[in-house]
Amino acid sequence: MACTEEPPEKHCWVCFATEREDRVAEWVSPCRCRGCTKWIHQNCLQRWLDEKQKGNGGGAVSCPQCGTEYRIVFPKMGPLVYFLQQADRALSRASPFAAAGVVVGTVYWSAVTYGAVTVMQVVGHKKGLDVMERADPLFLLMGLPTIPVMLVLGKMIRWEDYVVRLWQRHSAKLNGLVPGLGRTLPRMPTDGGYGGDHVSVSRTLCGALIFPSIANLVGRLMFRRVTSNLQRTILGGIAFVVIKGILKVYFKQQQYLIQANRHILDYPAREERADDHSEEDNEDSGNE
Amino acid sequence: MACTEEPPEKHCWVCFATEREDRVAEWVSPCRCRGCTKWIHQNCLQRWLDEKQKGNGGGAVSCPQCGTEYRIVFPKMGPLVYFLQQADRALSRASPFAAAGVVVGTVYWSAVTYGAVTVMQVVGHKKGLDVMERADPLFLLMGLPTIPVMLVLGKMIRWEDYVVRLWQRHSAKLNGLVPGLGRTLPRMPTDGGYGGDHVSVSRTLCGALIFPSIANLVGRLMFRRVTSNLQRTILGGIAFVVIKGILKVYFKQQQYLIQANRHILDYPAREERADDHSEEDNEDSGNE
Repeated sequence: MACTEEPPEKHCWVCFATEREDRVAEWVSPCRCRGCTKWIHQNCLQRWLDEKQKGNGGGAVSCPQCGTEYRIVFPKMGPLVYFLQQADRALSRASPFAAAGVVVGTVYWSAVTYGAVTVMQVVGHKKGLDVMERADPLFLLMGLPTIPVMLVLGKMIRWEDYVVRLWQRHSAKLNGLVPGLGRTLPRMPTDGGYGGDHVSVSRTLCGALIFPSIANLVGRLMFRRVTSNLQRTILGGIAFVVIKGILKVYFKQQQYLIQANRHILDYPAREERADDHSEEDNEDSGNE
Repeated sequence: MACTEEPPEKHCWVCFATEREDRVAEWVSPCRCRGCTKWIHQNCLQRWLDEKQKGNGGGAVSCPQCGTEYRIVFPKMGPLVYFLQQADRALSRASPFAAAGVVVGTVYWSAVTYGAVTVMQVVGHKKGLDVMERADPLFLLMGLPTIPVMLVLGKMIRWEDYVVRLWQRHSAKLNGLVPGLGRTLPRMPTDGGYGGDHVSVSRTLCGALIFPSIANLVGRLMFRRVTSNLQRTILGGIAFVVIKGILKVYFKQQQYLIQANRHILDYPAREERADDHSEEDNEDSGNE
C-alpha cells in the first residue's frame, strides 16, 4: 500500500540502488507493475532471469508480482546457427528411439544366435550348419529368433500346477473309489502356494533357455542307442519334461499334505509354571 | 478387565462357541493368554493362521494379544521331498543370477558381433574376415567387444566443450590482442547449457555405435583416391570428428553470444495507455 505511488526517482527492486547512485546503468520497466517495483536495472533483471532459467536457456519467465511475461529479445541467429540448432534438436529427439532400436537389435541378434546354436545342438553341429546354409536367409532371420520365444512360451504353460489342482479337487472322490489311496485330510489348506506358486520371470527365462541343453544331455544319457541326433534330443526333452513333471506334482502334493496336517501345540507347561510368571517372561524373550 | 478370570467353560475367541455347543471339536491354548482368550478351536486357529500367512506358507505367526509365537508342528517330510524342497530353493535363489548372466551374455555377444562387423567395415569385408580367421579366437573374444566399449568411451570425451570453455575464458584477452575479433559482451551468461550441456546417455551410445559407419561414408566421399580401406576409413573418421567439432564449437559459441546479447524490453506503450487500464488488461490476457 505504501508503494502504489511512484517514488520521485527510479529505484531498482533487486539491488535497491537509485538513479542517483549509478547514472550510467540501464533501466527497464518490463511489466505492468507500478510504484516501487516498476523499475529495475537491466543487469539486475538479467541476473535474476539467469537464476530463474537455470539449466534451460529458453524458458519464459513472468514477473512474480503482476504475472506479466517478460519480453526477451535475442539477436537474430544466422542460417548456419539455425540449421545447427534444428539438427541438434532433431538428434536429441531421435536418440531415445535409436537407443531403443539398439536394445531391440541386441536382443534380436542374441535370439538369432541362440536359435542357430539350438539348431546345431538339436540336429548335430555339422548337419545343423548344412541345414542353415541351405535355408533361405530371410527364413532364418525370421525363424531362428522364434526358437527362444517358443521355448519361453512353452515354459509358461504350467501343466503340473493344473494336474496338482485337479488332483486336490478330486482327491475326496478318489479316496472313496480307491480305498487306501489317501486318508481324509484334517483340513483343506488355502490355495496360497501349493496349487500354483508365483511365476518367477527369471526362472522361466533361464529354464526355457537351458532346456535344449538339458534335453540333449538327457538324450545322450538315456537314449544312447538312438543314432539320430534329432530323435535322441527330442526323446531326451520329452523324458526330462515327464520326469520333472512327475517330481513337481509329487512335491506340490506333499507340500499340500504337510500344510494340511500341520498342528498347533498348546503353550508348554502352562499350568505348572503359572506361579512364576515373571521368570517365564524373561526366558521367553531371551529365546525369541 | 472383565476377562482376566477364566470363565467356567472353554470358549473359542474366534467363533465364540463354547465347549457345550460342540463336544468333538479339538481345543488348543497356544499362547500365554488367560481368561476368555485362553482357548480357541484348533480349526478356528488354523483358518486364522491361513489368513495371516496368505502367500507364504512357512512364516512365523504370533498371538496378536500376548505376542507369544505359536508353535506349529508339521509332519516329518520324507528324504525325497526334503531334497526336492532344497533343489527348488537353490534354483529360486540362483535364477536371478542366471538371468543377469543371460543379460550380460546378450550384451557381450552383441558387442562381439558389433566388433566383428566394425572390423569388416573398417578394413574391408574380405580382408576383415581373413584377419579374424587368422587371429587367435581367445584374442577375438576379448578384443572384439572392446571395440564398442572404446567407441563409447571415446565419445564421452567432450573436447568441444573444453574448447568452448577455453575460448570463453580467454575471449576477453583475445579481444585485447586481436582487434576486431569480438566485441565486449554486455554480460556473461551463466554456465547452464552453453559450456557443457547435459550428457544424454542414449545420444552418446548411438553416436558412438554409428561412428564407424559415418567414418566409412565420409572416407568414401572425401578420400576416393586412397585405395586402402583402412586408411580411407581412418581419414574419414578424423575428417568427420574435426568438421563436427568445429561446427559444435561454432554453434556453442553462437548460442553463448545470443544469450549474452539478450535484452529485456520495457512493457509496451505503458505511459500512453495508462488511462485505459482495464482495456489493456483484456487485450493482454487474450494474447497470452
